[in-house]
Formats: sequence, C-alpha cells, structure tokens
Amino acid sequence: MTVSEVDQPPQTTDDAQALAARCLALEERLDRLEAAQPEDKVAIVVFSGDLDKVLASFVIATGAAALGQEVSMFFTFWGLSVLKKQRKLEGKNLFEKMMATMSPSSSKQLPVSQMNYFGIGAKMLRKMMADKNVASLEEMIEMSQEMGVKMLACEMSRDVMGISEEELISGLEPAGVAAFLGESLRSRTNLFI
Amino acid sequence: MTVSEVDQPPQTTDDAQALAARCLALEERLDRLEAAQPEDKVAIVVFSGDLDKVLASFVIATGAAALGQEVSMFFTFWGLSVLKKQRKLEGKNLFEKMMATMSPSSSKQLPVSQMNYFGIGAKMLRKMMADKNVASLEEMIEMSQEMGVKMLACEMSRDVMGISEEELISGLEPAGVAAFLGESLRSRTNLFI
Amino acid sequence: MTVSEVDQPPQTTDDAQALAARCLALEERLDRLEAAQPEDKVAIVVFSGDLDKVLASFVIATGAAALGQEVSMFFTFWGLSVLKKQRKLEGKNLFEKMMATMSPSSSKQLPVSQMNYFGIGAKMLRKMMADKNVASLEEMIEMSQEMGVKMLACEMSRDVMGISEEELISGLEPAGVAAFLGESLRSRTNLFI
Repeated sequence: MTVSEVDQPPQTTDDAQALAARCLALEERLDRLEAAQPEDKVAIVVFSGDLDKVLASFVIATGAAALGQEVSMFFTFWGLSVLKKQRKLEGKNLFEKMMATMSPSSSKQLPVSQMNYFGIGAKMLRKMMADKNVASLEEMIEMSQEMGVKMLACEMSRDVMGISEEELISGLEPAGVAAFLGESLRSRTNLFI
Repeated sequence: MTVSEVDQPPQTTDDAQALAARCLALEERLDRLEAAQPEDKVAIVVFSGDLDKVLASFVIATGAAALGQEVSMFFTFWGLSVLKKQRKLEGKNLFEKMMATMSPSSSKQLPVSQMNYFGIGAKMLRKMMADKNVASLEEMIEMSQEMGVKMLACEMSRDVMGISEEELISGLEPAGVAAFLGESLRSRTNLFI
Repeated sequence: MTVSEVDQPPQTTDDAQALAARCLALEERLDRLEAAQPEDKVAIVVFSGDLDKVLASFVIATGAAALGQEVSMFFTFWGLSVLKKQRKLEGKNLFEKMMATMSPSSSKQLPVSQMNYFGIGAKMLRKMMADKNVASLEEMIEMSQEMGVKMLACEMSRDVMGISEEELISGLEPAGVAAFLGESLRSRTNLFI
C-alpha cells in the first residue's frame, strides 16, 4: 500500500477490517522475527588443550555468565583433556593407549601453546596468575559449573580418541556437532578456541 | 503515541487514516528488519592447515549442511593446502618454491597440530578415525562439495604464496576478504579455525 | 485474534481504539527488536602473537572498516606483543623479565606459527608480501587506527604478564572481558584468532 492510497477517503467498515487484517499480518511477522532473534548467549568450541587458550575460554565464559548471559562450552579434540580427572589405560587399544599416555591426564598437566619448555612455561604462567590474584584454571572450571555454564563433551572425539566417560569430570552433557550448532544458531557470540 | 491518547474519543475518518499510516510505517520497519535478519548460515575461515583443525572445520561444515544450513568455507593461508591436488614448481620464484616444497602438497600430507612426529601423529589420527568408522578428510571434502558447501579460496593468500589455480581442486570460487565479510554478516555462526 | 474475528461486523469506535492499541503494542515490540538487532560490526579477539594470524586479523579488520563496518580488536595474551613499541625491564619481577625477554619486543619481531626457523620464516613471509605489494603489518596497524578501528588492550593479560602501558603504542583503550562481550553482543561477526 502506498501513501497515496492512504489519503483516499475511507469507507469505515471496510477500513477497520482491512486495518485489522494488516495488524494481524504484522503481528504474525513479528512473532516469527522475535522467535528467530539471536539471544544474549555465548557458544564456545574449546578445541585447544593449551593452558593459555583454555584460560581465555574460561575467562570469557565466566565473564559472560557473570553478566547474566547463557554460556555453552563444547569441548572437542585436545580440549577434552581439560575435562579429564584421571587416566585409565585398561580397555584401550594400542593407539588409544599411546594417545592417552602422551596427552595430559588432567587440566593440571596442560602445556602452554608457546614457550612451554617441558611444562616450565605452564608452571610459570600459573605462578604469574596466582601472584596477581587471578583464579586458577581449576577454580574457573568449578566457578563455571556453579554459574550454570553448560559444558558439552564431544562424543565423536571421545570415541575416536578412546576416552571413556569415567575419565572425565562429572556434570558434563554428551553432545555432537548438531548440539553445538543448535546452541550456536541462537547465540550472539560464537568462538572457536 | 501514549496509552492516554489511545483512550481519546476517535474521529472515525481521521482515525482510519492515522491508523493506516501507522500500519504502513510498521510494515516498512518490519521489511527492513526482516531483510537484515541473520540467516541460518555458517561461515568458517579455514586458516589452519593442521589435519585436526581442518577435520573440525569439515565436521562442522558437513553437520550444518546436513541440518539444512547454508555453509561457506573461506580457505586462506595454510588452509589453502587442504585444497591442493598437486604441487607445481614451474613459474614460481625462489621463495615460492621453498614455501611449496615445505608445505603439504595435498590434504593427504597435512600434519596434526600436536604430537605430529614427522607425520606419524597424522597417520595415527587417520587410523583411529577409520577404526571408528568416521569419514576421512578426503571423503568429508567430497561430501561437502556434494552437499553444496560453498568453498572460497582466498586470492590474496594464493597470490602471496604463489599458488596457481591449477594446483587447487576444482569447484572453488576465488574470493577476497569482502566476500567472506559478506557471507559472515548474514551468518549466525562465524568461526575462525 | 484469528482471521474469523477479523471478519465480524466492526463497531467503529471500539474498533478504532482496539486497532490503535494493537498498533501501539506492535510499535513497542518493534522498538525492542530494533534496539537488540545485531549491527554491521566486527569484533575480533587477537589472542595469537603469530605474524601470520595477526596479519589475517588485520586484513579482516581493515577490509571491514573499508566496507564501512565498525570494528573492534581486543588484544589479549600473546596478541599484546603486536602492540608493543619497546621493551622495558625495570619495575618487572623475575618471571615478568623472563617473559619479556622471550617475547617479541614489537610487531617487527613476531614469529610465524609454522616454519619460523628462528625468524627466517617471518622475514620470508614479509618479503613475499612486499613482492606482491601487500601492505606490511605495521602499515596495516597504522591504517586501522586511521580508519577508526577500535583497539582494546586486555588489562588482565597486561597485569599478569607485567606489561606496562608505556611499553604499548598509543591510541589503545584499556579493556576487560566485559568490554569485549559488550562489543561482541552487538556484532554480527565475532572471531577468536
């Protein structure tokens, strides 16, 4: 409808009906838009198992949760090491055993991505953080769980790497790529770390 | 207009005209909002040439495509190695030849980002995936192309690294950063891998 | 309201009032939707201090700025090295001195993430870019600042790593994770590099 049509002398009854129909159409379009509107949510893929990158993901996750945003973290591949509470070799095949032996057995063993020098770099970073009263990674993981950050452990990675559920901390949801994409579609902030 | 204005006794003709104008304004605002609404699309920058990260990008891409989402992958820098079908040294200058010789000549030569040990890590990962019946990278690339995933090869990186179009697989679109940003603006999920 | 209700014979005055109320409700819903609509903005976390990845972030940043988009870059952790103009050891504790000595003292010293060979890889990449008339990293940083790209330096990282403000280039805004999340929520494109 153009402006010139609006200026035509109105026929009251028809007009009211036509206007009501236009309002209805508008209401339906708005319903659809509102339902599809991205939410104040954050979805993070934690692919890395490097202490420095994992810390960055938890600083963002706890920061967003503190601001009242919903947060989901999807741990995959090397990122699964963050969630390990113990190493269990029984039931693993040869490659899985090699992978498990060479990977960190818990968040405490994560290396840094640069200047790691067989773990000295990671220890140094932890010391520097403690000196400045920044929470440790383990404290941030606990805080995240308390704040309701959703933690998803990628099933496919777990399967490929032969990591059993008992090796991981509790409070995790098993998930696949569809679960991540579902969260991601509704989130304003999506990061791959 | 406030609620008290709404309560005033209406003058029918004027009212109908005013209401029609308000509907028109609403319709125009909705048109603009709908046109700018982000779509159920995924845009991924594949910067990395590491097998593990590249696999993650294809798991997300094929997963999203299977869910009916439009997907664009923008391959740049080391990520161009994923798209190589052969190495061609003729026509390259000294640095380009060095770069080509030290880079993987196809997706089959990609290293893993951690514990690569001169290619043993990559072979091990491929074996572990096959043991769990996960598609290989080459199968995922083919699946992506069949599913209509848009694959863009960064022209600037190609130019800087001296990689000719004949060295790459077919079915790619040449693209610059503007093409990526265009896709990205319309996408709900944007990832840099 | 359903279509059948719309078809009922209207009572003009009531109708006009009811329609005005519906328009008002629609206007208010649209106000809220418009206010929450993501903008044509780009928010980039520059976590990496690798020349190749940093270049990618500036190619995207300057590209987006050239297309008229607002851009914020949030430099954290290794990414702070990009912003260094000098190294200052006085006032630093032992670990901070070690960190400073082993980190690049300015953007000119950044290594590449692959095939760095003690800096030869980085020099080679810079030479290959110059040969193809691509702007250098330092030119891109300057261009970004001239184009109004917002550059935020992560306070927590600066504090943990003991990097003083005088060591960084001018024109930066100090910022925390909340500042990044604020930008990110309003941006259509979010990347972690």
